[in-house]
Amino acid sequence: MSAIDEGAHLRAADRPNPVGFLDGRDLLERDLLRLWQGRDGNLLDRISHYALVPAGKMLRPLLVLESARCVGGRPEGLARPALALEYLHVSTLVHDDIIDEDDMRRGRPSVQAAFGLASAIVAGDGLLLETFAALTDAPPEDVPAEAVVALVNTTAEAGLSVCRGQLMETELVGDLDCGVERYLAMAGLKTGALFEASCRAGAILGGAPREWIDALGGFGSRLGVAFQIRDDLLAFDGPLALIGKPQESDLHNHRPTLPILLAYQRASAADRERLERAFHEDQPVEKSYAVVSEVLEATGARAAAGEVAAGLIRQAKDRLAALPAGESVLALAEIADYAARRRF
Amino acid sequence: MSAIDEGAHLRAADRPNPVGFLDGRDLLERDLLRLWQGRDGNLLDRISHYALVPAGKMLRPLLVLESARCVGGRPEGLARPALALEYLHVSTLVHDDIIDEDDMRRGRPSVQAAFGLASAIVAGDGLLLETFAALTDAPPEDVPAEAVVALVNTTAEAGLSVCRGQLMETELVGDLDCGVERYLAMAGLKTGALFEASCRAGAILGGAPREWIDALGGFGSRLGVAFQIRDDLLAFDGPLALIGKPQESDLHNHRPTLPILLAYQRASAADRERLERAFHEDQPVEKSYAVVSEVLEATGARAAAGEVAAGLIRQAKDRLAALPAGESVLALAEIADYAARRRF
Repeated sequence: MSAIDEGAHLRAADRPNPVGFLDGRDLLERDLLRLWQGRDGNLLDRISHYALVPAGKMLRPLLVLESARCVGGRPEGLARPALALEYLHVSTLVHDDIIDEDDMRRGRPSVQAAFGLASAIVAGDGLLLETFAALTDAPPEDVPAEAVVALVNTTAEAGLSVCRGQLMETELVGDLDCGVERYLAMAGLKTGALFEASCRAGAILGGAPREWIDALGGFGSRLGVAFQIRDDLLAFDGPLALIGKPQESDLHNHRPTLPILLAYQRASAADRERLERAFHEDQPVEKSYAVVSEVLEATGARAAAGEVAAGLIRQAKDRLAALPAGESVLALAEIADYAARRRF
Repeated sequence: MSAIDEGAHLRAADRPNPVGFLDGRDLLERDLLRLWQGRDGNLLDRISHYALVPAGKMLRPLLVLESARCVGGRPEGLARPALALEYLHVSTLVHDDIIDEDDMRRGRPSVQAAFGLASAIVAGDGLLLETFAALTDAPPEDVPAEAVVALVNTTAEAGLSVCRGQLMETELVGDLDCGVERYLAMAGLKTGALFEASCRAGAILGGAPREWIDALGGFGSRLGVAFQIRDDLLAFDGPLALIGKPQESDLHNHRPTLPILLAYQRASAADRERLERAFHEDQPVEKSYAVVSEVLEATGARAAAGEVAAGLIRQAKDRLAALPAGESVLALAEIADYAARRRF
């Protein structure tokens, strides 16, 4: 799977009407702009600014805010720690683009294409460090120091999971037979862990008891994996020309994604061979794409992968039952529904 | 200046009798081995382990421990947060080696030479995250949560300074005329900031009042810059064959270091031209090295750079006067003396 790139989808010409929670996103983007305004005095801040703005969907900070609200936390002063989770996410995008040699990100040159390899490595490090600076610089006054310590630990451990997932992904490269279970474990680390941490972070900031923190964590981890599967599916959601460069990356880099793994499991011997050739041989990506799309359709693997995502979303929403009913629980459910069906 | 590589010096054949504080280092290495023992279950931990062990001099965690002790802190439970500062340092080494294309580190293949570029990027990120996990996972019971929050913030801000210093260094590449002041500002960010943070971290963990934290911070920042200058000088401390590959890196990468900048300032027009040729033209590094060594000697720039370092060490030790006298203040002074004269 390629690193999830939300901004490009947001600006897609065929974008449907924005769903409700995107209003919250716009407020967060305003906070982001305010916090980074004038921070252009040195090269590190300029590159970080470039990487962060224009922002993507900012799902992770949105999850922080809605999770805090739904356990009764006051939203004042939460934008800064919420955005810290976005910094961590963007840090992984900056470094992923080096690893994948992706020159485009969110419709413009990626950091390493714009500033070079050395600066991109350092800027990714800077955004990781910015995460922990933002979590501890001026925590909201009504959040006890013990909660801030827990917040830092949760975030650092989630970041470590992302790293483990990234390395596990490199171990799966080229392996069409690695199996659904290993893919799900990898997606759980690479994408699920940060969604989970975002929800846990919000719950911690909101002063939630352990039970609610865990319920929101369980919601987030399943949501994250479902989100990743939808991202895998989006790569085959239309003509290649429309989908654009970033989505070619998985195929180009021989990374097995869930739809491809399911297709491989279900395919006839002849189709398995075609998949293997498309996946392993250095043929033009257009040709591989056409073959893979065809086998996905023939095997029903697209629908099957969609069903796995939908199942995870149902499980995620079940976790919300442990929480007090209210507007924010509805907002979280709405984000989950969006993740299950999103086309952008 | 190349990233400071302490392990290689430690194993140099002509190593003098170890100075006293290295006993503390050996205890820290034992803690490091204990903490990482058995952590080999996944690729991330294996690579991190490879990067951390065998350890270098571990000056940064030593500074944490001695700073904590000298303000009256109890040493129990401090090894883990102290080693967190080492994780941050080693993270920068792993990423530096990618940027500098250095294939050797501490006498064996660097992480990117041993595991590849992608894994080295991710492992460096992992060590950064490990820093903040270690600071917050199980802080000593007698350290209040407010102090842990301050510790995380101090460490994150120092990491950001290191990143700023690294980018500033890339801006100075090839610039023999950038001046001593800009070099010192860069070294203050790239090396001084983490030495400063280590001392501050120890003082915070030891429960010191603001005045002592600042005194120790002032000690650490000056010590760090002096340490960096000695590192620059070590590159010209003997025949090239003895000094080995890492020290070639500055010359190879056209980075101005303090001795070279001072030589350029003091050189005759003819020698300036020779320095420029040695610095800019892609000639064999042996030839550049011989020319630069000669001009350093002729201009007295080596002695002058040594004098700058010695002056910083004097300033650093002056800062210790603000602290209560005791064994740990003597240990810090000993580390400072060692930094001023070290030949390994």
